[in-house]
Amino acid sequence: MADYKKIMLAVDLTEESNAVADRAVTLARFFEADLHLVHVIEPLSLAYGGDVPMDLSAVQEQIQDQAKSHMKDFGARLEIDQTKQHLIFGRPESEIHRVADEEGADLIVVGSHGRHGLALLLGSTANGVLHGASCDVLAVRVGKPE
Amino acid sequence: MADYKKIMLAVDLTEESNAVADRAVTLARFFEADLHLVHVIEPLSLAYGGDVPMDLSAVQEQIQDQAKSHMKDFGARLEIDQTKQHLIFGRPESEIHRVADEEGADLIVVGSHGRHGLALLLGSTANGVLHGASCDVLAVRVGKPE
Repeated sequence: MADYKKIMLAVDLTEESNAVADRAVTLARFFEADLHLVHVIEPLSLAYGGDVPMDLSAVQEQIQDQAKSHMKDFGARLEIDQTKQHLIFGRPESEIHRVADEEGADLIVVGSHGRHGLALLLGSTANGVLHGASCDVLAVRVGKPE
Repeated sequence: MADYKKIMLAVDLTEESNAVADRAVTLARFFEADLHLVHVIEPLSLAYGGDVPMDLSAVQEQIQDQAKSHMKDFGARLEIDQTKQHLIFGRPESEIHRVADEEGADLIVVGSHGRHGLALLLGSTANGVLHGASCDVLAVRVGKPE
């Protein structure tokens, strides 16, 4: 009952993702759980709104290509099958929830900077993932302590 | 490196705490980690502010006595030594952080209702614990899905 069967590792593919992945892999091994990988590419228009000055589709395409390549490397290193890698375009929090629900994940593992103050108001991905998740969420502390 | 050595189980001592405890106990066994228990009693004045109409010290005392007794039972059931049980008076989020830091915990396990919307603004304990924690936080989903 207290076992996890499907773990969804959500990463931003920065260097810090390695520490987050470490935890997810350890837990997946222990629980003999299926490990899925999700990375969400946020459209520039979502991230910057009206501050996007022109058609940046070429930039967006480069971002996507780079994410695809990073995701492939990252997934391969963790020995996660390509069918369990989810590269998605959208708003991180809601897309992570959607994929986790669709796949029936019972644990989402995500990195957290443990920010507070202003960042609490602005919201961080870990915070956004925690709220509205229909399963457990492990926030792995990354970065330097404040 | 990816192992947890000291796990801090934070509970509100409601029925839902059992599900949260289940996870913490499973993880503590796997990692052979020390398991600590923390419960924070929020002073009535903190919870209700100016709406506390009179001296409620008698009520507060009853609340404390009941918490002490519940904590003892709960801790005994989980076979957590009394020296590892922390019954504290104050604001839940900050006290959980303080005890976790003092004890050098590397994982806090807390229940989460996964609320969003208004509750996100108001803040929930899981959310408060996540922010500003200097270690990992596992939010265990409790209660019915919304």
